[in-house]
Amino acid sequence: MIFAKVIGTVVATQKDKNLDGKKLLLCKEVDHNGNPLNSYHVAVDAVQAGEGSFVLLTYGSAARMTEITKNAPIDAVITAIIDEVDIRKVSK
Amino acid sequence: MIFAKVIGTVVATQKDKNLDGKKLLLCKEVDHNGNPLNSYHVAVDAVQAGEGSFVLLTYGSAARMTEITKNAPIDAVITAIIDEVDIRKVSK
Amino acid sequence: MIFAKVIGTVVATQKDKNLDGKKLLLCKEVDHNGNPLNSYHVAVDAVQAGEGSFVLLTYGSAARMTEITKNAPIDAVITAIIDEVDIRKVSK
Amino acid sequence: MIFAKVIGTVVATQKDKNLDGKKLLLCKEVDHNGNPLNSYHVAVDAVQAGEGSFVLLTYGSAARMTEITKNAPIDAVITAIIDEVDIRKVSK
Amino acid sequence: MIFAKVIGTVVATQKDKNLDGKKLLLCKEVDHNGNPLNSYHVAVDAVQAGEGSFVLLTYGSAARMTEITKNAPIDAVITAIIDEVDIRKVSK
Repeated sequence: MIFAKVIGTVVATQKDKNLDGKKLLLCKEVDHNGNPLNSYHVAVDAVQAGEGSFVLLTYGSAARMTEITKNAPIDAVITAIIDEVDIRKVSK
Repeated sequence: MIFAKVIGTVVATQKDKNLDGKKLLLCKEVDHNGNPLNSYHVAVDAVQAGEGSFVLLTYGSAARMTEITKNAPIDAVITAIIDEVDIRKVSK
Repeated sequence: MIFAKVIGTVVATQKDKNLDGKKLLLCKEVDHNGNPLNSYHVAVDAVQAGEGSFVLLTYGSAARMTEITKNAPIDAVITAIIDEVDIRKVSK
Repeated sequence: MIFAKVIGTVVATQKDKNLDGKKLLLCKEVDHNGNPLNSYHVAVDAVQAGEGSFVLLTYGSAARMTEITKNAPIDAVITAIIDEVDIRKVSK
Repeated sequence: MIFAKVIGTVVATQKDKNLDGKKLLLCKEVDHNGNPLNSYHVAVDAVQAGEGSFVLLTYGSAARMTEITKNAPIDAVITAIIDEVDIRKVSK
């Protein structure tokens, strides 16, 4: 999974029926400090994320493993809202 | 999912039988403003997109999750025509 | 899917039994004009392609969705021979 | 699979129910000598790894093939702790 | 599939039970002439490859389509030892 920040919403009227009722969010990939990286993804929201949220993004076939996304043509889903990333000094 | 713009059609007579009757469109990846990015994909159309359409593209195994593409050797499908991408100021 | 040009054949005697009898072709990724790009793939041929053919290449799990490739350890398959790519002026 | 070093832990309260009880670790991709590479992944731990561990990371649909991760929206899992990478002189 | 050269072995005691008894090999991606490319993969051996072998590497979900790798958390497998890559002059 990767980190992302939600930066917008995507509106589409004409779409596959399996996307009906799903919230499509534009996500910018970020690093663990929240600094923006180059790629972005449009992802379905499975955890009530909102704009500005710092989230965990699951992609590939795993993106269909939530109640909201199962059997839908969806390759990216927001699966968590990040509270904290705890980086410790690593002795090894 | 990613954004793309449809820029052409692909014609192929000799092909796998599971591609019969499917519209193959050449799609250029774009950003949320419609600016072209580097990659392109040939995708099957599931939403009556046409040339010039600003679309949502689903890829990987999820691309087989539409009525039109199920069980076919297809790794990219157009699943929506984008009306609008709404980017708000982010307070967080 | 992506475009590729077949540039050679791959010969392997010692291989997984599910690759037996499958033609392995070396494919160079190209753009829609046939200009070579950087990546290449070894793909199984499902459409009687030959060296020099301009082809459509399907990869990932979708590559197992042809009669020839099902249930085999194959991640790329040639699914069409391209006749033409039709790029129109786009007004939108 | 790739090599990675565990560099931190990820805390998330609001998340998909299938992530409950799973340890999310921040992993930096490394080469076989342990030198850091550019990408990182958030992965679920299936082998009691800890911070600083030099691990094997499995991604894609294969990441759901452990007892801990099956049927969950998880695209990366730590499947081994590396004891040693043995590089020999290659005569061929 | 891609070409790779086996450059080492990976030893791991603490690992997912579905990796037990599987030979983990460090593979460097190469081009069709055997020249090294940038990426590497840890792959399971399904064809009795050894160090220095010039091999075919299958990745993604297809990597679980051999007897040795099925149902295991494995995303890359060696599926053939390459005898020869035959590049012809292409007239088209």
